[in-house]
Amino acid sequence: MKLSDIGEDAVVEALTRELPVGKDVIVGPGDDCAVLGKKSDASWLLLKTDAVIEGVHFLADDEPERVGWKALCRAISDIAAMGGVPGHAVITLGVPGSTELEWARGLYAGLRRAAKRFGVGIVGGETCRSPAAKFVNVSLTGSVVPSRCVLRSGGKAGDFIYVTGRLGGSLRGKHLDFTPRLVEARWLAENHKPAAMMDLSDGLGADLPRLAAASGCGHEIWPMSLPCTPGSTPLNAMNDGEDFELLLAIRPDRAEALERDWKRGFPELELTRIGQLTKPARRSTRRSAGGFDHFRQD
Amino acid sequence: MKLSDIGEDAVVEALTRELPVGKDVIVGPGDDCAVLGKKSDASWLLLKTDAVIEGVHFLADDEPERVGWKALCRAISDIAAMGGVPGHAVITLGVPGSTELEWARGLYAGLRRAAKRFGVGIVGGETCRSPAAKFVNVSLTGSVVPSRCVLRSGGKAGDFIYVTGRLGGSLRGKHLDFTPRLVEARWLAENHKPAAMMDLSDGLGADLPRLAAASGCGHEIWPMSLPCTPGSTPLNAMNDGEDFELLLAIRPDRAEALERDWKRGFPELELTRIGQLTKPARRSTRRSAGGFDHFRQD
Repeated sequence: MKLSDIGEDAVVEALTRELPVGKDVIVGPGDDCAVLGKKSDASWLLLKTDAVIEGVHFLADDEPERVGWKALCRAISDIAAMGGVPGHAVITLGVPGSTELEWARGLYAGLRRAAKRFGVGIVGGETCRSPAAKFVNVSLTGSVVPSRCVLRSGGKAGDFIYVTGRLGGSLRGKHLDFTPRLVEARWLAENHKPAAMMDLSDGLGADLPRLAAASGCGHEIWPMSLPCTPGSTPLNAMNDGEDFELLLAIRPDRAEALERDWKRGFPELELTRIGQLTKPARRSTRRSAGGFDHFRQD
Repeated sequence: MKLSDIGEDAVVEALTRELPVGKDVIVGPGDDCAVLGKKSDASWLLLKTDAVIEGVHFLADDEPERVGWKALCRAISDIAAMGGVPGHAVITLGVPGSTELEWARGLYAGLRRAAKRFGVGIVGGETCRSPAAKFVNVSLTGSVVPSRCVLRSGGKAGDFIYVTGRLGGSLRGKHLDFTPRLVEARWLAENHKPAAMMDLSDGLGADLPRLAAASGCGHEIWPMSLPCTPGSTPLNAMNDGEDFELLLAIRPDRAEALERDWKRGFPELELTRIGQLTKPARRSTRRSAGGFDHFRQD
């Protein structure tokens, strides 16, 4: 059986079963980041790893500086989605020996620019030969105050679902230049702590079912309410992926205050109510309804 | 200018210049691991990232369980070389969609086996499509008591240089089945703290000049003293790479006690005196004298 026969979520499910997670683990596989520490600690360590691969996440002729920006900002987006603050990154660069030094320099210029913008330290890495495609793996630490740590699993039936910004059309360029919602996520965790939150990397159609499943809920989406990037349709918003916006669930009695305060705090960034978590039986969208699946696209 | 024209060390030098390392960094790029924390902390966080790539670090028909073992043990070896204890790992698996699920399961069986053996928790990761070659990136945390943290940079002219085990011939199988010297490195850090230490990943001919340079020293190797794997020559010991033995420098007045206690503690593993750190002017081997260079082999 090939990975493309069963799809990404089933592959991950098969591989992460019965992993030895060790001690001092608050959250193991299955959320945006691992959360490490003891329950009583004043701060928990977040840990994330993520790769961008030539031909999948970027193209050979994309500007290397934008590839570097994207590589680090993807991981920052995951730290943000936990309510955390990014700390230190280590980089693995795998490239053919025929790669121009200028390309690698450009990549690092993008990594440095993102690191400076979001307060990340780049403290090491590995550079090795990859015979075929280039790839860049970023591993990033972060920290989060336990009371502000937001998981995927805290949603309840009846919670309203929101997204930041606009969705769809990422491949027209946004996927290389997006702004991880670090400031917004910290504001949320401090002021209107979501019941559940994650970042949208594979598209709403793939990611919302993951958040709902982690919360033991079903979900419904109101397609006409989806905030679409100009030129994109609700179908793009569901399936294109790489939006790197926040997806969050809020208790219904807190929705009004959130919407009011958000408009004051972030007048230039939309926060849109797009649906609701439901009881599991009522869920209207199957887990594999859409979004980017790494193995089914081969 | 291509990376293959200038070689791995010069590439790393060019890319890591002027990196924003951030705060709370004890050791940044250039040692086996990054060391994070404040000077006054009771324990420091170690952070390492490392990849194995098909066609470079393993072959398409190598047993996936051995590939998984190798992928995690390489990172454990780096944590060991700092005098540390490994903590939690996150895994990036990049594979074509045509990959058999059995291969991925085998890989994870090897990762699990190494994790259980050396007390590592596997707490998350990413699984994504890599169109051409497979790769596995491991990011590993660790911890070290500050007084036991051993860097590459603490050597002085006159220190004796030792290696554990035997060198060379790794490609005949050892590179997939090696035992990271975690127990031995902890014993050293606690009982006979080396002035400098690193693990041998690219071969003595590449790695010893790195340790010597980090310590501001030259070095001399006594070729006839090199402990060679049966069937290997001193040239293999210098150049093959992937030995994953410890390379350490010890002050001359501590060498006798170390050798005596080592024989008692590890009667089945050799510890061999193979050379000496020297003043920079006297160094007998150029930095690029041998060993595995990722970009020059293309």
